Amino acid sequence: MADAITPRSTDYAKWYVDIVRNAKLADYSPVRGCMVIRPNGYALWENIQSELDQRFKQTGHQNAYFPLFIPQSFLAKEAEHVEGFAKECAVVTHARLEQNPDGSGLRPAPDSKLEEPLIVRPTSETIIWDAYRSWIQSWRDLPLKLNQWANIVRWEMRTRLFLRTMEFLWQEGHTAHATEREAVEETRLILDLYADFVESYMAVPVIKGVKTAAERFAGAVDTYCIEALMQDGKALQAGTSHFLGQNFAKAFDCKFQNTDNELEYVWATSWGVSTRLIGALIMAHSDDQGLVLPPRLAPTQIVIVPISRNEDEKAAVIEAASKLASDLRAAGVRVHLDDREGYRPGWKFNEHEVQGVPIRLAIGPRDVANGTIEVAFRHSGAKESRPLATFAANAAALLEQVQSELFSKANAFRKANTTPVDSYDDFKDVIETKGGFVLAHWDGSGETEARIKEETKATIRCIPLADDNESGVDMLTGKPSKRRVVFARAY
Amino acid sequence: MADAITPRSTDYAKWYVDIVRNAKLADYSPVRGCMVIRPNGYALWENIQSELDQRFKQTGHQNAYFPLFIPQSFLAKEAEHVEGFAKECAVVTHARLEQNPDGSGLRPAPDSKLEEPLIVRPTSETIIWDAYRSWIQSWRDLPLKLNQWANIVRWEMRTRLFLRTMEFLWQEGHTAHATEREAVEETRLILDLYADFVESYMAVPVIKGVKTAAERFAGAVDTYCIEALMQDGKALQAGTSHFLGQNFAKAFDCKFQNTDNELEYVWATSWGVSTRLIGALIMAHSDDQGLVLPPRLAPTQIVIVPISRNEDEKAAVIEAASKLASDLRAAGVRVHLDDREGYRPGWKFNEHEVQGVPIRLAIGPRDVANGTIEVAFRHSGAKESRPLATFAANAAALLEQVQSELFSKANAFRKANTTPVDSYDDFKDVIETKGGFVLAHWDGSGETEARIKEETKATIRCIPLADDNESGVDMLTGKPSKRRVVFARAY
Repeated sequence: MADAITPRSTDYAKWYVDIVRNAKLADYSPVRGCMVIRPNGYALWENIQSELDQRFKQTGHQNAYFPLFIPQSFLAKEAEHVEGFAKECAVVTHARLEQNPDGSGLRPAPDSKLEEPLIVRPTSETIIWDAYRSWIQSWRDLPLKLNQWANIVRWEMRTRLFLRTMEFLWQEGHTAHATEREAVEETRLILDLYADFVESYMAVPVIKGVKTAAERFAGAVDTYCIEALMQDGKALQAGTSHFLGQNFAKAFDCKFQNTDNELEYVWATSWGVSTRLIGALIMAHSDDQGLVLPPRLAPTQIVIVPISRNEDEKAAVIEAASKLASDLRAAGVRVHLDDREGYRPGWKFNEHEVQGVPIRLAIGPRDVANGTIEVAFRHSGAKESRPLATFAANAAALLEQVQSELFSKANAFRKANTTPVDSYDDFKDVIETKGGFVLAHWDGSGETEARIKEETKATIRCIPLADDNESGVDMLTGKPSKRRVVFARAY
Repeated sequence: MADAITPRSTDYAKWYVDIVRNAKLADYSPVRGCMVIRPNGYALWENIQSELDQRFKQTGHQNAYFPLFIPQSFLAKEAEHVEGFAKECAVVTHARLEQNPDGSGLRPAPDSKLEEPLIVRPTSETIIWDAYRSWIQSWRDLPLKLNQWANIVRWEMRTRLFLRTMEFLWQEGHTAHATEREAVEETRLILDLYADFVESYMAVPVIKGVKTAAERFAGAVDTYCIEALMQDGKALQAGTSHFLGQNFAKAFDCKFQNTDNELEYVWATSWGVSTRLIGALIMAHSDDQGLVLPPRLAPTQIVIVPISRNEDEKAAVIEAASKLASDLRAAGVRVHLDDREGYRPGWKFNEHEVQGVPIRLAIGPRDVANGTIEVAFRHSGAKESRPLATFAANAAALLEQVQSELFSKANAFRKANTTPVDSYDDFKDVIETKGGFVLAHWDGSGETEARIKEETKATIRCIPLADDNESGVDMLTGKPSKRRVVFARAY
């Protein structure tokens, strides 16, 4: 069925693409930089959506939907924002196609040229703040806490399935508040929500922090982020939450009457995670045999493969397997009974392994006779025989154990690949040879940051929020530093 | 809070827009023809999505996601398809913006012009069948039954919120089959699924039928549809299911090896419903006081408004109201306790009426003393006092009763506005003065159909599938007709 998966040690980038293709998560599309998300990949996104959506609603957010197109002039209203996005956007200029005059195919009809070009949204702050201006008049209209699930286009030159594509799916929250304090609290609430989701559902440990000015979202006062570590020692930004100050309110003239009857600009946040999370999921847990999925996100948590050599055996095996499937379903487990004809058990085993199903159960005639079942764990490769009768009742706990072991493993990997360094020579050496997160002192200047990036390709992933301050001196300039920051090469 | 709602009898079109705006379902956007779907409107779409998605999955469909952009050349591969869509599409021609040389704002950067323009999908048959070619080799790969939830752009000149917008949200199913019979069965299965959903969830009765050649989807062999009747006597197409034959398989060279080891073109269907359904919902049930929602789709099914004149009364009222809300929630009812301070009960009553909450409960000190509650039904305007103690236990049944009354009312309206006619004079008279569905005999020719459309603006909405054949003669040409077809003016 599947092509061989390139081992990580041979070519990590090729391994990644092999996993995506062999597990049927996504495919390249004929449009450069766009991808087709196949059912296996989309099911992961649906599970991510469903869990996050519930958490957004529990914290008082509502969903809405804003237009795909943004007038060119809107983008220009916030100075840094246009600087950040104008260089990579899809521009709609015509509203109709017509036959070429020489009959050779189609062309944009010249007389359908738009007076003002439209931009396919690279993010929606501008179109949303234009609407907020008309919805917000008084403090009574605040806070306004909206989210949208949408597709986004950024004209990336170098694309990789899930990690960086021209079009991707995401959610973007946009909130409006009466006070700075409330907006900052919202930014941090969402950061915590993201971190908890990624750690507890995706089993990927993250560092919470704030970006340096150079790495900030175009138009933000502060960009908070969660940073995860991939198996090749590179960092991946898994989500961002921006405190936008009054920048967009000023750009779109959005004021409200406060309780003292004075007009003030509204305070803003925006925040998002995208299908990139699926890339993080793959690179955090998968191995040379294929995808490894954490049970909480796995579309199929347990697969049952019945094994028999003849029709007599088959009846009893299928009966036991069906009963088990129905017991597991009743216990709230997402279970699949793989009773396809015409495929050998070994072929099925391999397919489920490549696709990352957390637990595989095999049941044959001897199991039926003995009242046992063979349990194979995807994440550890362990296999064991267990009593059939009690399996369903313990399944949920077993899946939680797998979830927790995956997190522990990823956490141990991160710990082993987080290195404090004090000299620039050590820094360069660790970045070059070991990779991972490097904790070093930094003097806070953009110049130092740029020089390090230039010389080592490592960037400051974040200034951590954790309360573990330890002052020191910048490894390059010797200037004072209040705390270590996190450096890494990154996706 | 809200502007006055124009009565239907004064100006039906304005009434519709007033409902959409006052119930905060949607707003115009600065991009001509696009709309902002506000939380109240999006919550309806989420409920529609959630119910349909479940039904799609129960019938063996999986979700996936295909690119937003379609290469211009793809559109041209199916002759009728390009004819149908090239005239109204958003064309992306550039990948970057830059400052105008004179410094006056932005322009598409000339050197970022694309070699081949990209079309924002008006529908996804072409990009999907391009992918299917690489996924389908053998009969073992069939059927392939995918669906996507996505945004779509068609450059409409005359737009109306929800009913016809340049960008809209929809789902599009695309299935591939080994045989014609199986593909036709799929087309009909989905038609039934749509009809059942619209009737049982939206409480809107529909006629199932097949379109004439003139009204077919561009590229289909047969287009099946469900047609609903709005309160102004105009028809609205609420969903379509297309049997595509082998047209797209041929255009994209998608063949499979059948069980006899022969290569055959794959058989296809596609089908969709969109945010237009929200327009149908509004126009089927709402009245001059505002939106009327069927309980099964209503984001809030029951709202409780506590009423008190002083702090003493308030404590007891809020306690009783909270207890009731929690009992209703436990009974599976989507309930909202509107305990906002600073708004008078009458103001709240009006807001919930405009927003279409099916049942409103008012509870005051006298109710608490008497163990009663005031129940107001949105759809009928009826008010009655009921025992508080048993209300929660009966609420689900009460909501189902409202659902059923709404359907009966819409059904009675449709019956009263469905008129069989036998002469063209009567036809013109009914279309002009009464409107509604007109059942007439038609000789099956496109010429007759075109002449009737030209002279009366009425189109054949569908040739019904119902088994109520009655032969006759065409009202215009006198030629034989096997059955009456459904004419109407339409949205």
